[in-house]
Amino acid sequence: MEIPVVQGILNANDQIALQNRQLFDEHGICVINIMASPGGGKTSLILRTIDALRDRLRIGVIEGDIASNVDADRVAAKAVPVVQINTGGQCHLDAPMIGRSLTQLPLPDLDLIMIENVGNLICPVGFKLGEDLNVMIASVPEGDDKPYKYPGIFVAVDAVIISKVDLLPYLRFDVAAFRKLIIGMNPNVSVFEVSCETGQGVQDWAEWVAKQRETKRRKC
Amino acid sequence: MEIPVVQGILNANDQIALQNRQLFDEHGICVINIMASPGGGKTSLILRTIDALRDRLRIGVIEGDIASNVDADRVAAKAVPVVQINTGGQCHLDAPMIGRSLTQLPLPDLDLIMIENVGNLICPVGFKLGEDLNVMIASVPEGDDKPYKYPGIFVAVDAVIISKVDLLPYLRFDVAAFRKLIIGMNPNVSVFEVSCETGQGVQDWAEWVAKQRETKRRKC
Repeated sequence: MEIPVVQGILNANDQIALQNRQLFDEHGICVINIMASPGGGKTSLILRTIDALRDRLRIGVIEGDIASNVDADRVAAKAVPVVQINTGGQCHLDAPMIGRSLTQLPLPDLDLIMIENVGNLICPVGFKLGEDLNVMIASVPEGDDKPYKYPGIFVAVDAVIISKVDLLPYLRFDVAAFRKLIIGMNPNVSVFEVSCETGQGVQDWAEWVAKQRETKRRKC
Repeated sequence: MEIPVVQGILNANDQIALQNRQLFDEHGICVINIMASPGGGKTSLILRTIDALRDRLRIGVIEGDIASNVDADRVAAKAVPVVQINTGGQCHLDAPMIGRSLTQLPLPDLDLIMIENVGNLICPVGFKLGEDLNVMIASVPEGDDKPYKYPGIFVAVDAVIISKVDLLPYLRFDVAAFRKLIIGMNPNVSVFEVSCETGQGVQDWAEWVAKQRETKRRKC
């Protein structure tokens, strides 16, 4: 008698993440989940990315915060579709939250969705949302020892953005050592050095995003 | 028939937090739980506080991190008793972790214990450790809009330390507005402006700590 083996049973969150992903795939939308510490520069990066790509891609944004609409208001001022999720205390976004927010976005009219996760280097990593790509921002004032202390996120992401590099002259932060450390942990990761204050590095990052979107479009 | 009503049942964490607190009280130790974002400057503040108070108080440190001993090594170099807790992925310290770590500290020989919580503005707030005081660090590169986004921690703490103020000339951060906002949310909070780089404000903060310890000593 053969005993049936059921593999790969998804938990409730992952099931809904898969549904979200299928919806994104149907519309050919590339979805990027952006994670960082509080104040790492997630919203500023999203605003810069909108400016860099808005002539080439139709962009939507999902803003995740425990409370407030501060970030969504800043994005809305760029006249792109935006939804604010207030988690009400929860320390990360999850797939059901994203699923519900999608009814508020014009999916047939979008090429790229950027999701700003809750400011937290730990908890968001454990919850799939249906995204194509995971990106983290490591801001230079946080110090160059973060990969030792928060290894989970550094190995989970497709790209690391070293942000606020305009502050490097005033800080002890060894960019070369930091790059070496994270590439040692995650050999396939792409690394960008960006200042949303001066615009340095924004174009390189935006080209990477556009390329990821193009790769996805060809697949769908 | 009277129905018995049992009030104030503690959850498992709070029960152990109470045991920790009783142990601290028996030894007259003042315990401060320090919370911040990743890279907010928790370890630097602890090192500065040791330097400022080591002639007056006997100090111990509990270091909480998901992984690594980087911070504990920095504290140990100051020749004070230190224990490293590695949470193994958990996003906050809890009372059982603190309870177990106390067997590694010479409690009869301590006046003050500083606990460095995991870098996270959200999850640590929900877990009592047995501490006397809760303190958060808000570093100026994180921006002055954090109270809107992470209200839970700003209302839960006894003191807020505005850290890295040596970077103020290079950032848009309105200290007066920030102070007004947090005092509006939490009228009894003490606010300090500190740079662990230059030492600015460290003495004011250290005097506050010494005063809290003295108040506790009189009670025990």
